[in-house]
Amino acid sequence: METTLSGAVEPGLTVIGLGPGDPELITLKGLRAIQAAEVVFVPRSRDGAQSMALRIAAPWLDPARQRVVELALLMVRDAAQVRPVWREAAATVAAHLDAGQRGVYLLLGDPLLYGTVTYLWRELAALAPHLQLRIIPGVTSFAAAAAAGALPLALADERLVVLPASHEDDLERLRRLLTEFETVVLLKAGPALPRIVAALEQTGLLDQALYAEYVGMPEELIARDLRGLDLHNRPYLSLVIVRRGDRL
Amino acid sequence: METTLSGAVEPGLTVIGLGPGDPELITLKGLRAIQAAEVVFVPRSRDGAQSMALRIAAPWLDPARQRVVELALLMVRDAAQVRPVWREAAATVAAHLDAGQRGVYLLLGDPLLYGTVTYLWRELAALAPHLQLRIIPGVTSFAAAAAAGALPLALADERLVVLPASHEDDLERLRRLLTEFETVVLLKAGPALPRIVAALEQTGLLDQALYAEYVGMPEELIARDLRGLDLHNRPYLSLVIVRRGDRL
Repeated sequence: METTLSGAVEPGLTVIGLGPGDPELITLKGLRAIQAAEVVFVPRSRDGAQSMALRIAAPWLDPARQRVVELALLMVRDAAQVRPVWREAAATVAAHLDAGQRGVYLLLGDPLLYGTVTYLWRELAALAPHLQLRIIPGVTSFAAAAAAGALPLALADERLVVLPASHEDDLERLRRLLTEFETVVLLKAGPALPRIVAALEQTGLLDQALYAEYVGMPEELIARDLRGLDLHNRPYLSLVIVRRGDRL
Repeated sequence: METTLSGAVEPGLTVIGLGPGDPELITLKGLRAIQAAEVVFVPRSRDGAQSMALRIAAPWLDPARQRVVELALLMVRDAAQVRPVWREAAATVAAHLDAGQRGVYLLLGDPLLYGTVTYLWRELAALAPHLQLRIIPGVTSFAAAAAAGALPLALADERLVVLPASHEDDLERLRRLLTEFETVVLLKAGPALPRIVAALEQTGLLDQALYAEYVGMPEELIARDLRGLDLHNRPYLSLVIVRRGDRL
């Protein structure tokens, strides 16, 4: 089957949400921007392994024609260090994009939901105000996990809350969210999994949870029974969906 | 530019999130399932106008080869009426899908986030247990609105809450959400817009909001200034994102 994509892709930098991991969960719009690009920017992984974004986008890239540039985006907790890191990344992007060229910056999931685009965008706007910036949204990891597990995220008048579990040190606050909202999505769950399971046990919600890691990738693991899961050494980018409402 | 999509699409029913409105915001996986389908099911619109899902998917359909079946899914508030409506829809789906055939059910946004798939799924599982069911996730309307407005949805340790505004009659509860969460996404905002703006004025957040309707469609409207907006007769499927945190 062949799909002909049409429409011009403008010069500048397009930030693309690749989706959760399955290369085919990219949008057509994102694919078209990737294939039109001369330069492909990806965040360099923390441990020196292949960039996850690069791995997901690999089927759509042409190494003979496109230049791949990895941006060193150290995770800095110290707010004072954030701007210099991103200013350097913005300078790298600007230096690689000549006038009229098209670049893409590839991110997992959706760029504006915990994506690093915000900082880069701000520095680029200051450093290279002539550069056109665009964002193409993507499928989130929790939408893909819900689809894989056939778990509704929200129905009718229900409310959904999304938060990064790695920052949730306050067990009491987590318990309160779990009782107030029909669905709670805990991202970056890996390191926090023992605490999450403790909060689920205390609220009687352990059987209402779904755990997911590497959604749509060969290593995918979806678990409905968190009791049988080794809670330690799970990947950072894993997630837990807790749902008090109806299931399929 | 041509993209060759590969991989077999299995028989059964595949529920596909089309994304918010731009036909190119469908995923490759969704497109592949649509193009492999003999039968295309869509919800019939309430007012007899062309189904919105059908309009979005139109560029990807082949009327000469594919049969389009509209499902009459009256919105029923009375819980007792919900099951018969969906049982009939499930019977229609089962009657149109012979053994070995591939059908797709097309929905806006993501199927499991306020999508009607849950009810259909339950009735199909009872009525036609042999039928294979699959869900392909989609880009949500609020991710696309955030991308169009360059508005971060969440950063670092922030928390995001999503709810349908049409059900939010309790102004005090809405005000509490607006002060407790960094980002609040109010879906189905159209009819509730006067109440939403009142709550935003009372919490001093009116300048922190983004209003969006028909995202990615020719009628798209994105407004950062809700003061200048006619609050009445906006479409039902519009949304407001309120963000107290950093902006781009």
